[in-house]
Amino acid sequence: MTFKPVLIAGAWRPATKPTGAFTAVNPATRQPLGDHYPVSSIHDVNAAVEAGREAATALEAMPDAPEAIARFLDDYAARIEGAAGPLVEMAAQETGYAPTPRLASVELPRTTNQIRQGAAAARARSWTLATLDTKTNIRSYYHALGGPVVVFGPNNFPFAFNSIAGGDFVAAIAAGNPVIAKANTGHPGTTRLFAELAFEAARATGMPPAMVQLLYRTPADVGFALVSHPHVAATGFTGSKSAGLQLKAAAERAGKPIYLEMSSVNPVFILPGALAERSAAIAKELAGSCAMGAGQFCTRPGLTVVKAGADADAFITELTAAFAAGSPGTLLGAAGPTSIASALDVLRAHGADVLTGGQPINDGAFRFQPTVLRATGAAFLADPDALQTEAFGTVTTVIVAKDIDEMSAVADHLEGNLTGCLYTHTGGDDDADYARVAPVLRRRVGRLLNDKMPTGVAVSPAMNHGGPYPATGHPGFTAVGIPASLLRFAMLQCYDNVRPHRLPRELQDKNPTGTMWRLIDGTWSQADVIG
Amino acid sequence: MTFKPVLIAGAWRPATKPTGAFTAVNPATRQPLGDHYPVSSIHDVNAAVEAGREAATALEAMPDAPEAIARFLDDYAARIEGAAGPLVEMAAQETGYAPTPRLASVELPRTTNQIRQGAAAARARSWTLATLDTKTNIRSYYHALGGPVVVFGPNNFPFAFNSIAGGDFVAAIAAGNPVIAKANTGHPGTTRLFAELAFEAARATGMPPAMVQLLYRTPADVGFALVSHPHVAATGFTGSKSAGLQLKAAAERAGKPIYLEMSSVNPVFILPGALAERSAAIAKELAGSCAMGAGQFCTRPGLTVVKAGADADAFITELTAAFAAGSPGTLLGAAGPTSIASALDVLRAHGADVLTGGQPINDGAFRFQPTVLRATGAAFLADPDALQTEAFGTVTTVIVAKDIDEMSAVADHLEGNLTGCLYTHTGGDDDADYARVAPVLRRRVGRLLNDKMPTGVAVSPAMNHGGPYPATGHPGFTAVGIPASLLRFAMLQCYDNVRPHRLPRELQDKNPTGTMWRLIDGTWSQADVIG
Repeated sequence: MTFKPVLIAGAWRPATKPTGAFTAVNPATRQPLGDHYPVSSIHDVNAAVEAGREAATALEAMPDAPEAIARFLDDYAARIEGAAGPLVEMAAQETGYAPTPRLASVELPRTTNQIRQGAAAARARSWTLATLDTKTNIRSYYHALGGPVVVFGPNNFPFAFNSIAGGDFVAAIAAGNPVIAKANTGHPGTTRLFAELAFEAARATGMPPAMVQLLYRTPADVGFALVSHPHVAATGFTGSKSAGLQLKAAAERAGKPIYLEMSSVNPVFILPGALAERSAAIAKELAGSCAMGAGQFCTRPGLTVVKAGADADAFITELTAAFAAGSPGTLLGAAGPTSIASALDVLRAHGADVLTGGQPINDGAFRFQPTVLRATGAAFLADPDALQTEAFGTVTTVIVAKDIDEMSAVADHLEGNLTGCLYTHTGGDDDADYARVAPVLRRRVGRLLNDKMPTGVAVSPAMNHGGPYPATGHPGFTAVGIPASLLRFAMLQCYDNVRPHRLPRELQDKNPTGTMWRLIDGTWSQADVIG
Repeated sequence: MTFKPVLIAGAWRPATKPTGAFTAVNPATRQPLGDHYPVSSIHDVNAAVEAGREAATALEAMPDAPEAIARFLDDYAARIEGAAGPLVEMAAQETGYAPTPRLASVELPRTTNQIRQGAAAARARSWTLATLDTKTNIRSYYHALGGPVVVFGPNNFPFAFNSIAGGDFVAAIAAGNPVIAKANTGHPGTTRLFAELAFEAARATGMPPAMVQLLYRTPADVGFALVSHPHVAATGFTGSKSAGLQLKAAAERAGKPIYLEMSSVNPVFILPGALAERSAAIAKELAGSCAMGAGQFCTRPGLTVVKAGADADAFITELTAAFAAGSPGTLLGAAGPTSIASALDVLRAHGADVLTGGQPINDGAFRFQPTVLRATGAAFLADPDALQTEAFGTVTTVIVAKDIDEMSAVADHLEGNLTGCLYTHTGGDDDADYARVAPVLRRRVGRLLNDKMPTGVAVSPAMNHGGPYPATGHPGFTAVGIPASLLRFAMLQCYDNVRPHRLPRELQDKNPTGTMWRLIDGTWSQADVIG
């Protein structure tokens, strides 16, 4: 049997002593796709890390690495657009997503937009937060880590979070690091196509040979060896909590930074005034948000909190009807329906009743009925962990709290989440309740929304796609939003009394671009240092 | 026996079910000081954390917490100056440091300076890196963590790094967090005096009762419970690598951020041109730097690297003479001479020869002879870990490399360090060698110095007192330098579509101070948002 080659050290080559092989499966047909991909052994990992280290050294020696990196990213974005057809076709087969609009019109443009924003950030250099203290002649900035960054991509965004094209990849590259991509095993073919384009772009723009490398899969212990390798600089991971926590433990034992986006139920608090004013509209909005990508968005609203009463009952009726009327999307793999069913078992065992849905659908695809559950605030507070079990699909649990105190208590028992929403009366009717709940919710979430569902994650410099543990591994970093996401893959480098000609261009008196923002003696400025 | 009270929940009270007691020892006389301090049990830990959580909630509810915090810090700084006499007297007894200049004229002013810089940073708010995207109406900034921060202070700076007065304390408070201080057990009395002043300042300025709390000591397992407590927000630790790594593991298992400053040998590379030009001057400078605080600075130059030859031999002769002529300072405790002796055993066992010193001094104080060792580059490369064993005293190991390639290889085998220095010819004689060694050293250190010893750590906004693991736990953060050090104790908070009157003042259209720096649509500005 022939396996697809891995990309290591500037060459597509057979995996060395692979420990096995796998194929992707078309979730719409449950049929395996034809190509076989190798499961890499430690030999591939070691070779990729050593080559990545050499690439990092070569990047440091380039006369103007940020400009070269920007050219590479721009070139890569153009190649992706040129290969949109095959990319969309492959991704549609591997994920079951609609070729259009989802893949071709939404996710692919988002992906090239992120890549071009990364290029612009590398070129502008302002992300480095260069800080110059001219009196002491101490100067510092954020700079590449000096080794390869490992990126694990999730299954749910084959383009925008792809390990060799998505947000973490762009952030790591734009910050100046080579990347070792570990493909999501749900879409190895899509990832391979991206890797081919990235490698061509790297060659065309004169980047080091191992600027981008690709492995498809490893056994668990080899994955742990990868993230804890002495010469790996850092890891970005998006995926399940169970895999994430194991990688986190391995990396942290070795003192290696690892950034994880793992799980989130994304609570939505609908305050009484909003419920009285427009419960049908909110129910419809919630149903639509929860069904996006068949409920497989990290920001899917999986927990809805309302105050008991007639308005809440009406809302739940509307919501249940909307879910029942929804057409169940195709899930990404066989694990989808199984894991939703397991999550529902936990929720039911702890006092949540299924109002609609609750069962897998046994047609040709992997599907699950859109599901609404209902539980009391008391049930939630009796076992908050259980009632926050994430069901990765079109599932939301409505918590009916007896009063605002109990809504606030529910907020206070939330785990860390990516997002939290508060729906409020369009006038001031909910102001007092907002003031009760919002401060409690605020500390539990990375992004607080008001009268807006969480599923849109704008690529904005002000975005935070992050949040307290266990939504991520650290509350100070975002995985989306350029340039802030670059800071994860950089170290703080300080120069003390270093002679002017030995400073990096970004820290010399003369502004390197004429427009780079630098904090000079306490003032943000685009000017040169006046000598 | 009466134990000194702990400070918990706004009251000085006896420790609850303490597990033991301890006294400080005067290192200059080896005599125990009179006061007995309790070893706290889990009861004190739980009480302090719950009170700290309430304090964090109360802070959030204050109408203008940053201004209130600034007033608190300013008031505290003034109280410290008013109590300088007793503070210096107590610290001198507990550390053996000279009351003047070290404690009264250097460390105390540095401490109050840091506290006032923290006040200014809290008031200015620019540290929050507020980012406004007006087109999408997404706004974010760094904000307090919403729970108490635990601070473990080191033994070597009883004022400037004190757990309830030093850099980590200031950073955590200025960022808006209550602090639970764990005293260094070497100077509990000094820490108690600070805590009394801090608590008085907190009351005088209307802060929550548990804004500052103090425990003296815990058994190891209780310390692990503290840093991993579900309601603790984060931990700052400065101290030994062995204690730090244990706390790191406990905190990270629980998903809690922990910032550690642990160990560093602070390599100094003296390039051939500099050695030829001014070896005697550099030897003298190195001996002076290494002897500061009896060699007990985190940035003490413990590893010196030169190229073999007559200049190197002359330099080593000068250095050895300077060390031999130095008067050995008093070490901070009984562990000082013992741990230096253990470190020397490791160094000697791996090919380092003692040129001067090498023995403890058995007079009334804890002392050790200033010590120079010499080893070859080959010996270093044969076991780089062993040759980087930190000796926390006036000790430096001179590595004599056979050529620049070997100097560069030594740099490439360094662990992460706080600092790295390159001494170079005052003209251009060393430019080529600098270009060889500096890029390798750069990625291994937080602060790169040129023709300057590392022991001065200026409180500059551009300072990085941090570096790659195991110097610290994360290469992106600094423990010294305001406002950057505040970012460790903050989370990224994003507001998406939140109505204007519900935004924190720092993110509203109107600039909250008229001078706060904010990144508005890609431009750093002190202006209001133009509606």
